[in-house]
Amino acid sequence: MTVETMPAPAAHPFQSIDAATGEAFGAPFATHGPADVDAACAAAEVAFDAYRALDREARAAFLDAIGDEIVAIGDELIVTAMRESGLPRARLEGERGRTVGQLKLFAGVVREGGYLGLRVDPALPERQPLPRPDLRLRMVPIGPVAVFGASNFPLAFSTAGGDTASALAAGCPVVVKGHPAHPATGALVAAAILRAAEKTGMPEGVFGHLVGPGNDLGEALVKDPRIAAVGFTGSRGGGLALVRLAQARDVPIPVYAEMSSINPVILCPEALKARAADLGTAFVGSLTMGAGQFCTNPGLVLAIEGEGLDAFVDTARTALGGAKPTTMLTKGIHAAYEAGVTALSGHKHVETIGRGDVGEGITCGRAAFFATDAEAFLADESLGHEVFGASSLLVRCRDEAALHRVLKASEGQLTATIQMDAGDVDFAARLVPILERKAGRILANGWPTGVEVTHAMVHGGPFPATSDGRTTSVGSMAIDRFLRPVSYQNLLPDLLPAELRDDAAGTAPRLVDGKPA
Amino acid sequence: MTVETMPAPAAHPFQSIDAATGEAFGAPFATHGPADVDAACAAAEVAFDAYRALDREARAAFLDAIGDEIVAIGDELIVTAMRESGLPRARLEGERGRTVGQLKLFAGVVREGGYLGLRVDPALPERQPLPRPDLRLRMVPIGPVAVFGASNFPLAFSTAGGDTASALAAGCPVVVKGHPAHPATGALVAAAILRAAEKTGMPEGVFGHLVGPGNDLGEALVKDPRIAAVGFTGSRGGGLALVRLAQARDVPIPVYAEMSSINPVILCPEALKARAADLGTAFVGSLTMGAGQFCTNPGLVLAIEGEGLDAFVDTARTALGGAKPTTMLTKGIHAAYEAGVTALSGHKHVETIGRGDVGEGITCGRAAFFATDAEAFLADESLGHEVFGASSLLVRCRDEAALHRVLKASEGQLTATIQMDAGDVDFAARLVPILERKAGRILANGWPTGVEVTHAMVHGGPFPATSDGRTTSVGSMAIDRFLRPVSYQNLLPDLLPAELRDDAAGTAPRLVDGKPA
Repeated sequence: MTVETMPAPAAHPFQSIDAATGEAFGAPFATHGPADVDAACAAAEVAFDAYRALDREARAAFLDAIGDEIVAIGDELIVTAMRESGLPRARLEGERGRTVGQLKLFAGVVREGGYLGLRVDPALPERQPLPRPDLRLRMVPIGPVAVFGASNFPLAFSTAGGDTASALAAGCPVVVKGHPAHPATGALVAAAILRAAEKTGMPEGVFGHLVGPGNDLGEALVKDPRIAAVGFTGSRGGGLALVRLAQARDVPIPVYAEMSSINPVILCPEALKARAADLGTAFVGSLTMGAGQFCTNPGLVLAIEGEGLDAFVDTARTALGGAKPTTMLTKGIHAAYEAGVTALSGHKHVETIGRGDVGEGITCGRAAFFATDAEAFLADESLGHEVFGASSLLVRCRDEAALHRVLKASEGQLTATIQMDAGDVDFAARLVPILERKAGRILANGWPTGVEVTHAMVHGGPFPATSDGRTTSVGSMAIDRFLRPVSYQNLLPDLLPAELRDDAAGTAPRLVDGKPA
Repeated sequence: MTVETMPAPAAHPFQSIDAATGEAFGAPFATHGPADVDAACAAAEVAFDAYRALDREARAAFLDAIGDEIVAIGDELIVTAMRESGLPRARLEGERGRTVGQLKLFAGVVREGGYLGLRVDPALPERQPLPRPDLRLRMVPIGPVAVFGASNFPLAFSTAGGDTASALAAGCPVVVKGHPAHPATGALVAAAILRAAEKTGMPEGVFGHLVGPGNDLGEALVKDPRIAAVGFTGSRGGGLALVRLAQARDVPIPVYAEMSSINPVILCPEALKARAADLGTAFVGSLTMGAGQFCTNPGLVLAIEGEGLDAFVDTARTALGGAKPTTMLTKGIHAAYEAGVTALSGHKHVETIGRGDVGEGITCGRAAFFATDAEAFLADESLGHEVFGASSLLVRCRDEAALHRVLKASEGQLTATIQMDAGDVDFAARLVPILERKAGRILANGWPTGVEVTHAMVHGGPFPATSDGRTTSVGSMAIDRFLRPVSYQNLLPDLLPAELRDDAAGTAPRLVDGKPA
């Protein structure tokens, strides 16, 4: 996704902003400074060895308890998040469910133990010319993790969101840099995490929460030598700045930044022939959902010119005309959206297919659908940049070869969608190898918005979709980002981690001599 | 390991250098330039889709065939490598066996299929409020890989070494930048790989080999937009330079650089009481093996002061006096070794415990063992830097707390070794959590030199041991470095990768709903 990392410098004192009106409300929040970063990181470092040494059930119980405490906040959480984010009740109730579901998913992952990647190669004392030692491997947590809350998922990808859940599951203490667009929501959730930590007997310092406007706080956090990895969802500029900071440290650390994606949707010829109108309506539904403020918003549509495409465009235009204007998350995000849409509107090779209703709120976005052709798209890379919000660009292609050229020239993406009918199988089969190199998830006959939190999900993708396309930030595989392997050679059982001892066989999956045992 | 990346600029034409005499010999080699880099990368890019689409058995057969072709070169390979590297016959014959063993290990990994990380979450059409789609995940190869040959393993970590084997196994074409210290050895091996590729019907461009003195060639390779990842074993300076180049690209790519480690050995109190003399002798054996030119050479020894340590030192001094001088790999490596040893010899807080025999060859290294105390070590970080070759530093510690302080202050390491007896279990148990955060492998009562190529091996470690402590460069897990996940949502069976289809269940390990199926 692309949002500005921070809103404009807040008035002192730092307060919540009503997304719909732009007015400050509620009690002021302390702006945390360098001393707070130091204290939180020191506490996380102290907590690390105790936290990682806990048995898996204790850590799983902590994750479960966080979910319970979030639910126990009750409606105050929803009402607060609604006002700070402008998102509607149903969406935030659903997001709360997803947040709790993520925590429970990772509790299950911890209990199951497959993430430990246990491997045992037993000693071969008779091997010639030299005996083979006993070798055992497990994944260990990487160290305290800094998590940057995202503005567009004030619950599911913020204070107790996916990055926090996966890092805590891995055995890493977490220091959250709360998003300044929803400080009251963040404070409620942070307090819930701390209550869960206390109730389940977690070491002090296992979770810290820092807030404040401006970039200094996040910079200090990433530079702190006790921080071992960073999770971030936000703008390309913000993500790349964190990557640079992390690489300039004496000891560089990994940054998992989810940054920028326009999520191409390819409309195959037979699908367009059979159901162009349905596709046009459904596309606008995906485009305008949540004011288009999803990392997986369909910002690029590719199709071959013809009657089917014309029908798709007509229906999309009509559907867009009826799209209600929606409050966006912050004034900054709205301003960036308007700037992006204005630039596309004025581009000499871009035609405006349609716009949504004009809204009255100061942060109301008017959905927008534009069109260009393959040659223009290939000639101007700015046309491939994300406009965060409900904006999408159709690229009309003369033929399949042109469509392939556009895909191959596009940047790395979180998702790529194929709308196809039975007669498109060969056409789609030629797309898949191209899409596999461009995206973390390939989907057919659905829309990219809506990300299942499950085991086989990849919410990641080649640069610049993320800063590290070898990983995912959603789904159970996200835990791998915060682990590293350690091998133990000829250690006495008393010195081995409990899960690697012979008597622990069966308590977590392990490979013995490379084979599932 | 630390070696200079390149030897001094070679005389034109570029030739092999006899490691023992410093004299050029044999036929001249073409120095590859930018056009060759471009051609090799273009060919690798073209080969990629065809190569990754091969079934696993075909790729495994290719890996096996490379091993067979290397063996088929016969004694010419050993004799050539001996002259270029100065390493003795027995070592190189063993290294050839290891090289072939690595290729066969990865062939087995490809056949077994666990590296694909298959995950299937079946659709739940009845789920409320929304159905769950069918989601399937597999790891795909990252793209063409640049491999930098290492000087200290002219077979096992060079042209057909571990990085090449693991990248080819993953499904990535490889472009090797051959090490200029053994161009003739590299040419023989490259030809063997190309013969294997032809015999097993691999796509053209699956393997490329570039050689030349100087840094331009490697720089051009890392900058090439078609290269998707880099494997490197060499100096800290060289590795960090490649990391910087890779990060400055329009599309940054991962660099797996194995760079610098001094491999602490901790002599526990009871072990010193019981067998100080044996430890001293065995330590010198590990220190001087292969002229100390191992990434895992024991360059740091930690122990608590006392009679046991005095006995260890006495025996080590005596053993060192009998250590034969050994030809080092290149004049550059020898010069760097001499400079490192001279700096330690002249350090005001460093005592020289002993030196090996004086040798006559121009690149003969005299093994060296030095001592300092914990306070001096903590006050001067240069004492913790690697001196590549047979040089080690004993740090005398007043007590356990001082020993812990030294370990905690030391940089990331490939290995950490505990020499212990039964009475040391509690002492060792307090060490393990510290060592887990510092090293990729923890071993007891052995020596760090000698790295098993197996499933549970980690040859990696926190920075600066490597540039990416989340990975290993030795052992079957090394394949993970060249893979990234892709998720497939609601794809028709015809469009799914074969291994993810329902009818492929059982042909490779898979998780179904997160559980081994």
